[in-house]
Amino acid sequence: MESLDFLFYPKSVAVIGASHVPGKVGNAIMRSITLRFEGKVYAVNVKGGEIEVNGKKFKVYRSIKEIPDEVDVAVIAVPAKFVPDVIDECGEKGVKGAIVISAGFKEAGRADLEEELLKRARKWGIRVVGPNCLGVTNLENGFDCNFNPPERQARPPFGKVAFMSQSGAFGAAILDWAAREKIGMSKFISLGNMADLDESDFMDYLGDDEKTGVITGYLEGVKDGRKFLETAKRVTLKKPVVILKSGRTEAGAKAAASHTGSLAGSYAIYRAAFEQSGVLEATTMRQLFNYAKVLAMQKPAKGDRVAIVTNGGGAGVMMSDGLLERGLKMAELSEETLKKFEEDVRAGKLPAHMSYKNPIDVIGDAPSSRYEIAMRYALEDPNVDVLVVIALFQSPALDEGIIDAVERMKAYGKPIVFVAPGGDFPHKMARNIEQKGIPVYETTEDAVDAVYALVKYGEWLRENGKL
Amino acid sequence: MESLDFLFYPKSVAVIGASHVPGKVGNAIMRSITLRFEGKVYAVNVKGGEIEVNGKKFKVYRSIKEIPDEVDVAVIAVPAKFVPDVIDECGEKGVKGAIVISAGFKEAGRADLEEELLKRARKWGIRVVGPNCLGVTNLENGFDCNFNPPERQARPPFGKVAFMSQSGAFGAAILDWAAREKIGMSKFISLGNMADLDESDFMDYLGDDEKTGVITGYLEGVKDGRKFLETAKRVTLKKPVVILKSGRTEAGAKAAASHTGSLAGSYAIYRAAFEQSGVLEATTMRQLFNYAKVLAMQKPAKGDRVAIVTNGGGAGVMMSDGLLERGLKMAELSEETLKKFEEDVRAGKLPAHMSYKNPIDVIGDAPSSRYEIAMRYALEDPNVDVLVVIALFQSPALDEGIIDAVERMKAYGKPIVFVAPGGDFPHKMARNIEQKGIPVYETTEDAVDAVYALVKYGEWLRENGKL
Repeated sequence: MESLDFLFYPKSVAVIGASHVPGKVGNAIMRSITLRFEGKVYAVNVKGGEIEVNGKKFKVYRSIKEIPDEVDVAVIAVPAKFVPDVIDECGEKGVKGAIVISAGFKEAGRADLEEELLKRARKWGIRVVGPNCLGVTNLENGFDCNFNPPERQARPPFGKVAFMSQSGAFGAAILDWAAREKIGMSKFISLGNMADLDESDFMDYLGDDEKTGVITGYLEGVKDGRKFLETAKRVTLKKPVVILKSGRTEAGAKAAASHTGSLAGSYAIYRAAFEQSGVLEATTMRQLFNYAKVLAMQKPAKGDRVAIVTNGGGAGVMMSDGLLERGLKMAELSEETLKKFEEDVRAGKLPAHMSYKNPIDVIGDAPSSRYEIAMRYALEDPNVDVLVVIALFQSPALDEGIIDAVERMKAYGKPIVFVAPGGDFPHKMARNIEQKGIPVYETTEDAVDAVYALVKYGEWLRENGKL
Repeated sequence: MESLDFLFYPKSVAVIGASHVPGKVGNAIMRSITLRFEGKVYAVNVKGGEIEVNGKKFKVYRSIKEIPDEVDVAVIAVPAKFVPDVIDECGEKGVKGAIVISAGFKEAGRADLEEELLKRARKWGIRVVGPNCLGVTNLENGFDCNFNPPERQARPPFGKVAFMSQSGAFGAAILDWAAREKIGMSKFISLGNMADLDESDFMDYLGDDEKTGVITGYLEGVKDGRKFLETAKRVTLKKPVVILKSGRTEAGAKAAASHTGSLAGSYAIYRAAFEQSGVLEATTMRQLFNYAKVLAMQKPAKGDRVAIVTNGGGAGVMMSDGLLERGLKMAELSEETLKKFEEDVRAGKLPAHMSYKNPIDVIGDAPSSRYEIAMRYALEDPNVDVLVVIALFQSPALDEGIIDAVERMKAYGKPIVFVAPGGDFPHKMARNIEQKGIPVYETTEDAVDAVYALVKYGEWLRENGKL
């Protein structure tokens, strides 16, 4: 398959339906595209004239054909009935990709209009995103045709997680949320009606995209089951794919049918397809990003045996429950490791009453130096595949040295997940620790998701001789 | 049972083991207690002298007996071995309650010392909190013996949720988290070893406490199963009780045994006990507070039929899935309701392509006025017991009028749960809506928890003729 790079890295873009009226979609798109993107942007509207956006003036061409330059991508936001003719004009102009924001096609009972749009695009060899979508957002170069204004929907920082969504509104909420949570994203695709390009095409593209480390998606139904399965099998060997499939229940499937027209299909079949193709299935929004964050930051696990180091006994108990309930295992520490702990306790380097039978409870008065001993012993143990570090920062004994201490643990090459429950101080610490490449979660249940993703994806790679 | 008010509303308190050394527990407790609390606070330390805390000077009495005033409550933070004698002195002084912060008892292999402590307290009729705990925090009057400093662990605003915790560290994290999430709390009790007062005693007390609307707790094991069951059955008819029971799995139970020494017991028995006594069981920290928040703000539901109003189809699908997966029902809107929608669509008051077959999808360009029509029709329908309103605030069409519109819906007397996924703007809106008494959640999965709690608690009250 050809690369879709031209859709995400256009040199020159035309916004067809550009408007000077604030609040109109064609105005909002101009605002978004011209904010950070450094490629050329041309405004097109049959009315002609001039418009000002973000303090810059743009001549308005009456047709894309009048633009005295090549155009790679057209972003189309004119009433649905005009779209097929606009596609023809794009074809004459030599446009490679059309991002059709306009609604009023299949989702509004006009399958005929969508057919016509597709026919014209095929004739000219134009690839189409949408219609009925928020277009694409490339967080790397700021190419962003999302019409939601930044004061309502923030954009996340550039990073490794790609997201594609069959629901534009939910996609927008996710971007806004990721911005607040400081989760770095590479590319966002609002899939819309998928008249031409579908979830498999983008999965394929993102699989080869160097800037994307993890592919995530919200889907109500796939367009072509066989194509999805075949693509997913290939892509998941290159990088993790996490899908939130909704329409799982009868009520959900009905709602999906009236939303995207997706035949949600039997959920059992979807589950089997995900299982067979190494796709990690998330069932909630938070889980989707719990999986994505850890997979973007840590290597998959080589096994399912987990060690816990904690300064709070209760959190250790909750974490143990959570792991077991998800089918994971508590590591049995080796004799040698237990001996190391015993000796340190005897020598007074570790406190007499600490428990080191996994969960390793370094006790509420632990400074970071005590954490470091425990983390090292756990990671040196051949029976440990994943380390979970729980820090209750409410204890004033726990100094900020923990940030560098946990970074030093990366040398062991085993995946690490950090948990820091609480309020503002733990949040500040979390951002510092994440800058060192260790993902931090707010609750033990979120960290259970993270460990599960590392173990599950590791299993898939091992089964396929890739780990 | 006598009221434990004296523990939460003391007129006069002695801190035994008060210290002038910053960082010491006896200093941190003085700092916490004297920050907001307006009762009398006396410092006691065998060393005597004077200490300064929060800019105020305190004479240090060498013994509680030297204090020239009555003392209701003693907060004890001296080495464990001295505690029994300190209790005797408290007895002579006429103290009613002893909050023993000191560790080094049963949890450290000194069950004998704990027995001795208890024997002395019984002799004098002193009720004991702890030992080995963070004491109690009354958010109403600022009586707060928690030694975690405010810069590490914030205190939540005063509100309706009481929390008791068998894990001090986890309790502290919860307070810190509640402060950040602006969840109002009434009282916090760190249960510690429960030598005397246990979870049932506090549940009983909180059941009669006018300031508490919802009782929540983190437990690894209950001290006396029969007492718990009998107390819970009584209290849950007055107000909701939500318990997070950890040590559910074999690994969790083992961890609990080495943490609090709790015999976690068979989880099946706990589940049965919760079921029989109307206790709502939460299995994660987030769920605990999803339940607590809605129960503090809304009335229990009279049935399990849920209507959804949303401006995002995808979120409606996810919400439908979540509800069905938890055993709840999508309401079937009555013929009359459907007719009202049809007429409004025909009259152009509602858009032609909106779906009103629950989820009621008011579409991405909905202003608050359109939401208001849909919310009213849903709430007027006798087939609807609970209303879920989903607002994707990323859409600039959705104006802030939604805040007052949803407040007006309270007139229908049916419980309402609001969902606002995303980043900073939705968070701001959420705080405004919560000030109107409607709980707002960040994800559909959290809102599913909320609806579940309202329905489940409503069922319990109905079964017992209380609703």
